[in-house]
Amino acid sequence: MNKTKLGAKTFLYPMPTVLLGSKINGQPNFATLAYCGVVQHQPPLIAFGSGKGHRSNEAIRKAKAFSLNLPSTAMMQVTDYCGLSSSATSDKAKLFKVFYGVLENVPMIEECPLNLECKLVAVLDFGGTNEIFVGEVIESYAEEKYLSQGLPDMRKIDPLVFSMHDNHYWSIGKKLGDAWNVGKTLKPKRKG
Amino acid sequence: MNKTKLGAKTFLYPMPTVLLGSKINGQPNFATLAYCGVVQHQPPLIAFGSGKGHRSNEAIRKAKAFSLNLPSTAMMQVTDYCGLSSSATSDKAKLFKVFYGVLENVPMIEECPLNLECKLVAVLDFGGTNEIFVGEVIESYAEEKYLSQGLPDMRKIDPLVFSMHDNHYWSIGKKLGDAWNVGKTLKPKRKG
Repeated sequence: MNKTKLGAKTFLYPMPTVLLGSKINGQPNFATLAYCGVVQHQPPLIAFGSGKGHRSNEAIRKAKAFSLNLPSTAMMQVTDYCGLSSSATSDKAKLFKVFYGVLENVPMIEECPLNLECKLVAVLDFGGTNEIFVGEVIESYAEEKYLSQGLPDMRKIDPLVFSMHDNHYWSIGKKLGDAWNVGKTLKPKRKG
Repeated sequence: MNKTKLGAKTFLYPMPTVLLGSKINGQPNFATLAYCGVVQHQPPLIAFGSGKGHRSNEAIRKAKAFSLNLPSTAMMQVTDYCGLSSSATSDKAKLFKVFYGVLENVPMIEECPLNLECKLVAVLDFGGTNEIFVGEVIESYAEEKYLSQGLPDMRKIDPLVFSMHDNHYWSIGKKLGDAWNVGKTLKPKRKG
């Protein structure tokens, strides 16, 4: 074995691409992020990190809520634009059709195949570049055309995938197998 | 617009597939998880959730460290097996060639294209099914054949991707564009 040390870096592949929704000065705002993952099944919790300078952070803290909107690959350009531009200099709300769910100050994006409406559970600070937000999903939304048997269908959602460090966007490839299933044949056989 | 409410569920796509490494009773152990995401750039932090009954949790708490090992699509079967079986009834260490980095009690998997060696930063409990672990990456490892220009290359790593709820494994598809770049053409033009 000849492994190279690559240093102390967050080499996790793949990462999702998410548009974080909040209201800034009464206007819907959407920020692109990939530092995001599910951390608990029940209650359903998601954690994400956002740079300390970002205007979304204060808005989320104030509203005690936010949305996570999943863009499709077809939305790559507008999603990247939301990562390039600040709410201070651009009106990102005009880029999308906005809708609301249960909570008052949580704008969501109609064009995104999936929307997660979240209430804020905790804000953590470990002394680094980011604030880390933990949120509980209280409702989720998708049009029927993105579902199969009542569940989101990866092929239909066609999510925009991200790779950090080289900073590329990707699509999802092929379905390879079923979890909690394909490994069964490796189980040691019991003696009759 | 006609969006269907899908309930309070963690519909985030895609999720990574990771083999969590720890030592249980002096033996290397590897548990499959997908509840995992990057949450901070610097210092590099990753958060993951693990069911409260899991034996890895106590081991990580004791060692104050763990590893995250990224399997390729070719490792789908053995990765799924690690998710099906408990360390109490199977010797998962025998499935892999194990190596060690800087920390004493952090086993890593040679066959995995990428390995992240992490020290424990925090264990969080929001009263649900999981404990949430925050770790700082202190070193990362990959063979040269998985790199391009010194960085992990998504095509070469060929990571195993997961979709929750329908529980499928997937591959990565095509590279679509460069982040912080493809959105530039949407920027409003400045006047002459």
